[in-house]
Amino acid sequence: MRILVANVNTTQSMTDAIAAQARRVALPGTEIVGITPRFGADSVEGNFESYLAAVAVMDAVTRYEGDFDAVVQAGYGEHGREGLQELLDVPVVDITEAAAATAMYLGHKFSVVTTLDRTVPLIEDRLKLAGLDTRCASVRASGLAVLELESDPARAIEAIVTEAEWAVREDKAEVIVLGCGGMADLETRIRERCGVPVVDGVAAAVATAESLVRLGLTTSKIRTFGTPRPKKVAGWPLPAQPEAAAAPAGAAGPPLA
Amino acid sequence: MRILVANVNTTQSMTDAIAAQARRVALPGTEIVGITPRFGADSVEGNFESYLAAVAVMDAVTRYEGDFDAVVQAGYGEHGREGLQELLDVPVVDITEAAAATAMYLGHKFSVVTTLDRTVPLIEDRLKLAGLDTRCASVRASGLAVLELESDPARAIEAIVTEAEWAVREDKAEVIVLGCGGMADLETRIRERCGVPVVDGVAAAVATAESLVRLGLTTSKIRTFGTPRPKKVAGWPLPAQPEAAAAPAGAAGPPLA
Amino acid sequence: MRILVANVNTTQSMTDAIAAQARRVALPGTEIVGITPRFGADSVEGNFESYLAAVAVMDAVTRYEGDFDAVVQAGYGEHGREGLQELLDVPVVDITEAAAATAMYLGHKFSVVTTLDRTVPLIEDRLKLAGLDTRCASVRASGLAVLELESDPARAIEAIVTEAEWAVREDKAEVIVLGCGGMADLETRIRERCGVPVVDGVAAAVATAESLVRLGLTTSKIRTFGTPRPKKVAGWPLPAQPEAAAAPAGAAGPPLA
Amino acid sequence: MRILVANVNTTQSMTDAIAAQARRVALPGTEIVGITPRFGADSVEGNFESYLAAVAVMDAVTRYEGDFDAVVQAGYGEHGREGLQELLDVPVVDITEAAAATAMYLGHKFSVVTTLDRTVPLIEDRLKLAGLDTRCASVRASGLAVLELESDPARAIEAIVTEAEWAVREDKAEVIVLGCGGMADLETRIRERCGVPVVDGVAAAVATAESLVRLGLTTSKIRTFGTPRPKKVAGWPLPAQPEAAAAPAGAAGPPLA
Amino acid sequence: MRILVANVNTTQSMTDAIAAQARRVALPGTEIVGITPRFGADSVEGNFESYLAAVAVMDAVTRYEGDFDAVVQAGYGEHGREGLQELLDVPVVDITEAAAATAMYLGHKFSVVTTLDRTVPLIEDRLKLAGLDTRCASVRASGLAVLELESDPARAIEAIVTEAEWAVREDKAEVIVLGCGGMADLETRIRERCGVPVVDGVAAAVATAESLVRLGLTTSKIRTFGTPRPKKVAGWPLPAQPEAAAAPAGAAGPPLA
Amino acid sequence: MRILVANVNTTQSMTDAIAAQARRVALPGTEIVGITPRFGADSVEGNFESYLAAVAVMDAVTRYEGDFDAVVQAGYGEHGREGLQELLDVPVVDITEAAAATAMYLGHKFSVVTTLDRTVPLIEDRLKLAGLDTRCASVRASGLAVLELESDPARAIEAIVTEAEWAVREDKAEVIVLGCGGMADLETRIRERCGVPVVDGVAAAVATAESLVRLGLTTSKIRTFGTPRPKKVAGWPLPAQPEAAAAPAGAAGPPLA
Repeated sequence: MRILVANVNTTQSMTDAIAAQARRVALPGTEIVGITPRFGADSVEGNFESYLAAVAVMDAVTRYEGDFDAVVQAGYGEHGREGLQELLDVPVVDITEAAAATAMYLGHKFSVVTTLDRTVPLIEDRLKLAGLDTRCASVRASGLAVLELESDPARAIEAIVTEAEWAVREDKAEVIVLGCGGMADLETRIRERCGVPVVDGVAAAVATAESLVRLGLTTSKIRTFGTPRPKKVAGWPLPAQPEAAAAPAGAAGPPLA
Repeated sequence: MRILVANVNTTQSMTDAIAAQARRVALPGTEIVGITPRFGADSVEGNFESYLAAVAVMDAVTRYEGDFDAVVQAGYGEHGREGLQELLDVPVVDITEAAAATAMYLGHKFSVVTTLDRTVPLIEDRLKLAGLDTRCASVRASGLAVLELESDPARAIEAIVTEAEWAVREDKAEVIVLGCGGMADLETRIRERCGVPVVDGVAAAVATAESLVRLGLTTSKIRTFGTPRPKKVAGWPLPAQPEAAAAPAGAAGPPLA
Repeated sequence: MRILVANVNTTQSMTDAIAAQARRVALPGTEIVGITPRFGADSVEGNFESYLAAVAVMDAVTRYEGDFDAVVQAGYGEHGREGLQELLDVPVVDITEAAAATAMYLGHKFSVVTTLDRTVPLIEDRLKLAGLDTRCASVRASGLAVLELESDPARAIEAIVTEAEWAVREDKAEVIVLGCGGMADLETRIRERCGVPVVDGVAAAVATAESLVRLGLTTSKIRTFGTPRPKKVAGWPLPAQPEAAAAPAGAAGPPLA
Repeated sequence: MRILVANVNTTQSMTDAIAAQARRVALPGTEIVGITPRFGADSVEGNFESYLAAVAVMDAVTRYEGDFDAVVQAGYGEHGREGLQELLDVPVVDITEAAAATAMYLGHKFSVVTTLDRTVPLIEDRLKLAGLDTRCASVRASGLAVLELESDPARAIEAIVTEAEWAVREDKAEVIVLGCGGMADLETRIRERCGVPVVDGVAAAVATAESLVRLGLTTSKIRTFGTPRPKKVAGWPLPAQPEAAAAPAGAAGPPLA
Repeated sequence: MRILVANVNTTQSMTDAIAAQARRVALPGTEIVGITPRFGADSVEGNFESYLAAVAVMDAVTRYEGDFDAVVQAGYGEHGREGLQELLDVPVVDITEAAAATAMYLGHKFSVVTTLDRTVPLIEDRLKLAGLDTRCASVRASGLAVLELESDPARAIEAIVTEAEWAVREDKAEVIVLGCGGMADLETRIRERCGVPVVDGVAAAVATAESLVRLGLTTSKIRTFGTPRPKKVAGWPLPAQPEAAAAPAGAAGPPLA
Repeated sequence: MRILVANVNTTQSMTDAIAAQARRVALPGTEIVGITPRFGADSVEGNFESYLAAVAVMDAVTRYEGDFDAVVQAGYGEHGREGLQELLDVPVVDITEAAAATAMYLGHKFSVVTTLDRTVPLIEDRLKLAGLDTRCASVRASGLAVLELESDPARAIEAIVTEAEWAVREDKAEVIVLGCGGMADLETRIRERCGVPVVDGVAAAVATAESLVRLGLTTSKIRTFGTPRPKKVAGWPLPAQPEAAAAPAGAAGPPLA
C-alpha cells in the first residue's frame, strides 16, 4: 500500500525526516511518500499558521498524482484533519490523535511533552475535540525559545526530558507522548531516564493507517465527513504554479499561488 | 467605533444581508463594514470549505485598509476565530459562540437550530471547544437539501420552526439560537410559535464586540493568541489581485491568487 | 434605559462605589440606579449571608418604584439570580457569570482572583452551575483576613496581584477575572504586572445588560424562570418599614422588617 | 438522638406528613421533630419561593429551642442546605441528595420522577452541584397542573407512575427516586408496576442523618461551611413575633416578621 | 510474531471462530493462538461471569507454554484487561476498547450494537473507564433472549441490524462497532443497510496488537500495571489438572481446579 | 440483622480487625460476621490480586451458610462489588464508595489518603465508575513501601497524616477519607492535625448497609444486576475443600480449591 505522509510546514528537510521515521516502522509492502506543502510557515506554530497549513496540506494532498491508500497528517496539535477526511475516501490519521490513542493501551495515563509553550493549548484542544483527553495527565512544554533550540540542541533535549520526568513524577503519567519532532535520540533519552514507554506520533500514525487499510476501513461518508457537494468554490483548486513549489521554501518572493 | 463583519462565504449579497442585520442592532456611533472573502465557497458547508474560509477571512481582514476596533466572524460552526485572534489586537467575536453565550443569560438551556444536517457536528464541536456546550440542550437541523431551500423557502422556514418546537418540547430548550441566516421572519416566526426568546448570532456578536471595545478589553497576547513570531511564511500575505475580488464570486476562472 | 445595580450587602458606600463603576462604562443614555438591601450582612461572605442576600435583593428590587430595563446583581459567587429571573420580565445579569462569559472572548483560559478563601467554592459552584467552568483555569484567593484588608490595603492589593501572577504562570490563565471589588487600582496593577486583560464583573455585567436590552431579549418564561404562580406566600412582600431602611445599615436594633 | 425535619413550605399538614414518614423509618431511640417555616409559600415551586424557603428554614431551625443532633431539609430540588451547614455543627442532610446517593447503591442508573415540570431543572441543578448527576438517567415530571393534582389524585398518581415506567424502559433507570411527596401509595404503585426499588427522600435522609450521628461525623468547618464570622447582619435573627407563626399559614395579613 | 487471542468463555467452538476471524486480518508473519479458559461460563453475560472469566483468562494465559508477543482479550465489555497487563510485559489489547479507538478514526461518533440488554451497562462502563466514551453516541442492544438467538438466527441478525439503523438515524452514529460475535454476515449486512463503516472488535484488536509489537511498545510498568510484588498468593497459580481442561466445557462435574 | 463483612485478602487477623471496627459502629441488633476468602493475596494490591479477590469474595460469600441481610466488601479500590450484586438479593456496599458518598455530606470536597502509590489509580477508577469523583479533590498515597510500614509503623502513620495535611492545604479537601486500614489511631491523628472530619470506609459502609436494610431497599434486579441466567458455569461453585481454608493462608502448597 502507499501512504502519503503530509508534513504541515514547508521545510523539505523536515518532510524527509518525517518520511524516514515513517519508513522505519512501515510494513515491508508499504510505500511512504512524503508531501510538502507549497506554501505556509517553515515551522508551524499557533493557529494562524496552522489554519494556513490546513489548506496547504489539502492542496498538496489533492494535487498528488497517483493512487494512495491512506494519509498521515504529521503535525502536533494542528488543524485540518477533518477537511482531508471530507476530500478523500481513504483513511486520514492525525499524529497527535494516533499517538494519544496508542498511549492509552500502555498505561493508566499519558502526558504529552513538546517544546513551545504556545503549542500546549492547541494540543489540548485537539485531544479534547477528539475525545482523547480524559486519560491525558498533562501537556507540558519545555518553553525554550526556538532560537535556543537551534543554537544549543543538547540543552533543548535536556529541557524536554526534564518535562517528561516531571510529568511522570508529578502528573502521574505512565506513558510519554512526543509532541514535537526532529530531535535525535529524544525518544531513547526519555525512555531511559523516565522508565516509561515513549510514543512517537509519526510511527503510531503510520501503523494505525496501515491497520485501517488492512481492515478495509474507510472514513464514514454519511454525515460529517461526506464529500463536499459539487458547488462553486472560487479559487479552488489552487492554481498549478510549479515555480511556487520550486522556490526555496519560505522565500519572501513567490506568492501563494 | 468601526466593526468589520466578515462573511465566511463569497456571496456578496449574503455579506450585504449580514451587514444590514448588524447595522440594525449597532450603536449610533458604530460603523459596520461588511467583508467578503476573495475566494472559497459561495455557501460554506463542512470542514473543507470552512478551513478554506478560515484562511480567506484572515486574508480579507488583514487586507482591509483602515482602522477598526473589532471583528465579527459571521459563520455558523466555522473554523478560524483563533487565527484572527493571533493576527489582530482588537477583539474577535465568533457568532456561534456569541449567540450561545448570550442565550445563557436568558434560560436554563438553549438549542441551536440550523438547516443542513452536516453542520450540526461542526456547531457541536465549536461549542464544546469554547466550553459553551454544557447548557446546550441540542443542535437540530431541518435536514432540507439546499435546493429545496431555494425552491420552496416557505417550506424551508416551516421546517426550521418545527425543529425549534421540538427543541422546546422534547429537549427542554428555553431559548432558541439561530444557527443559520438569511431567512426573512424566521426569528419572529419561532418566537411566536414557541414562546421563547430567539437569539440571532450576528446581532449578539455585534453587541458583544461593541461591549468589549467599550470596556477597553482586547485579546490576551500572553500565550495562545500571541502575535505570530516573525518568520518566513511562504505565500503569505496572499498576492493582491484586484481582478480576483472583482470577478464574479465562484466563477471557475480566477485563481485563488 | 435604566439599569438597577443591586448590591448584595447593606453597606451604602459599597453600593455607591459599585454604581460609580457601573456609570463609568454605561452608555450615554443609560441611567444606573444603585440598590441597597434593607437587611443582611454589611459584607457578604459564605452561604448563610448569601441566601439572606438573595431574599434581600429580591425584596429591594421588587420594592423599587419605577420602571427599569435590566438588573445587575453585584456580588461575587452569590445566590439569588434565578429568583430575580422569575420575578422579573427584564434581563437579570449576575456579575460573576458576566465576567466569566466576557473573559472567554479574550483568552484560552481565565482565572478568578478574590480575597477570602471561603468565597472560592461559592464562585466555583456558580460557574459550574452556569456551565462556565470548563475554561476556568482556577479560582484563587489571597486568603488575607478581612481585618488585614482594612488595616493594610496596600498589602491586601499586593496579595491579590501575587495570586494573579501565579494564576498566569502556574495555572496558565490568559485573562484575570476580578472576584472582589472596592480596591482602587487593582485592575491596573494586575494588568501591568501580569500583562493580561483584566475583567471587572460590574463593568462586564452592565455592558451585557445593555446589550440584552438593545437586542430586545428577555428572560424565557416558558419553564425554569416562569413567573411564580399566584399563591399564598406568607410574609411576602416583606412589610414596608421605612425606619428599617433608614436605620444605619448593620445596626443591631432594627428587625428585618 | 433528636433529628429536626424541616419542611420547606408553610403547610403544617405537610410537615406532619413528612414527620410521620420520618418516624416510620427512624431508629427506636430517635426523636423526630417536624419544623414548619414561619413564612414563605404553602407549596414551594421554583427559585423565588425556594430562596425564601432557604431563609425561612434557617430562621426556623435556629429558632428551635433545644438540642438536636442532625437536620433533614425536606424539599425536592431546594436551595438552602449550604446555609444550614454554616450555621450548625451537626450534620445537615438534603433529601434530594440523600435519595440520589442512596439510589446509587441499588442500580446502575436511577431516575427522579416528580410532578411539576418547572421543578425538573432545580432538581437537575442540585444533583449537578452535589456531584450526584453522573448516574442519573433522567429527571422526569408528570407535568400535571397542581389543581389537577388536587381534583383528581388518582390521575395524578397514575401520571407519575407512567413517567417512572418511561424512565425504566426508555432512560434505562434501574431505580426510581421520588421527587415529590404526599401521595399515598405512590411508592408501592411504582414498585409493583416497574419492578424496581423506589427511594423516598425523607426516609433516605433520616437514615443517613442517623448514620452520620452514630459515626460521630459532623460538617467540616475548615472552609466552605465554616461558622459565619461575627459581624453585623442587619435584621438577623429575624424578630420573634409569635403572632406571625400563629397566624394561618399563607394569610395575607401577617408580615414576615 | 505470535498473538494469543483469549476467548472469555469456555466454548471451544467460539474460540475457534474468534481465532479464525483473527487470522483473516493478521499479517503474514503473525501466528494466532486461540486460548480457551479452563472454567467459567460457556457464554459470558454480566459481572459475576465476567469476573470469573477475568481470573480464568489470567490462568489460561499464564499457563500458556511458549513465547508470545501480545495478548488480545476477546470479550465485549468484560473485566480483566488490567490484570493481564500486570502479569505480562507484552501488550494486552481489549477488543471493546480497540474497536472503539478504531472507530474514532472513521467518523464523528460511533455506536456499539450488541445482543443482550444487560451487556449494555458493562460496555458503557468499560468505555467510560477507558476514556473512550465521549464520542460514543450510544450502546444499543437488540434485546433478544439467547434462546431466540439460537432458534431463529435470521431474526436475531435482523434485530441487530435494526438497532444499527436506529443508531445511525436517531443517535447520529457514523460508525457501527460490533459488540457481539459469532453471527455470519452481520458486518456485511449492517454496512449495506446503513451505509457506514462497521468495526469488528477482534479484527481491530489484532491489528492494534500487531502495531504495538512492531512499534516496540510495551505496557508501562512504572505504576498501575507494575508486576505484582512477590508475595504469598494462596491458591495461585491454580493447580494443573489436565482433566479439568479435558472435560467437556461447562460439564457440571469437574471442579474449578 | 446480620451483615457479612467480607475482607478481600486472606489474612485472618485483618478480617478480625475489620469485623471489630464494624462492630464498633453497628446498631445494637446487628450481628457482624467477618468473612475471609479461601484463596488470594494476603494483602491485595493491584488489579491481578484484586480480580482474584473478586472471585474469592464471591466464593466466600455464597458459601456462607445462613441468612444475612447485607454484605459489605471491605477493600479499598477493589473489583467485585457488581458480581456480588448479581448473585445476591440483599444490598452490597463497597467501602470505597460508601466512604466517598458519606464524605460528600460533610464538606465541599474530600480527599482519599492511602499507603501504596499503585492503589491510587484503582481508587480513582472505582470512584469514577461509581460517579463519585466530581467532588473528590485528590487521591494521595504516602508511597511508603510495605516493608517500611511493618518495620516502622510510626513513620508510616506520620507519612499518611502528612499527605492528609497536603490534601487539606493544597487540594482544598475539607474531609479526609481513609483509603487504607489497620493503623491504630490514624483517624484520630488526622482529625487532630488537620481539623477536618475523617471517614473510615468500614464504618461508613456498615452504617449504610444497615440503613438500606432498615429502609427495605434491595438491589435492582431489572437489568445490570439481574440474577445470572441458569447456565453451565464450569468449575463453579468452587469445590468445597475444607483443608484449603484450614491451611495457613498464603502457604505455597494448597491449591485454589
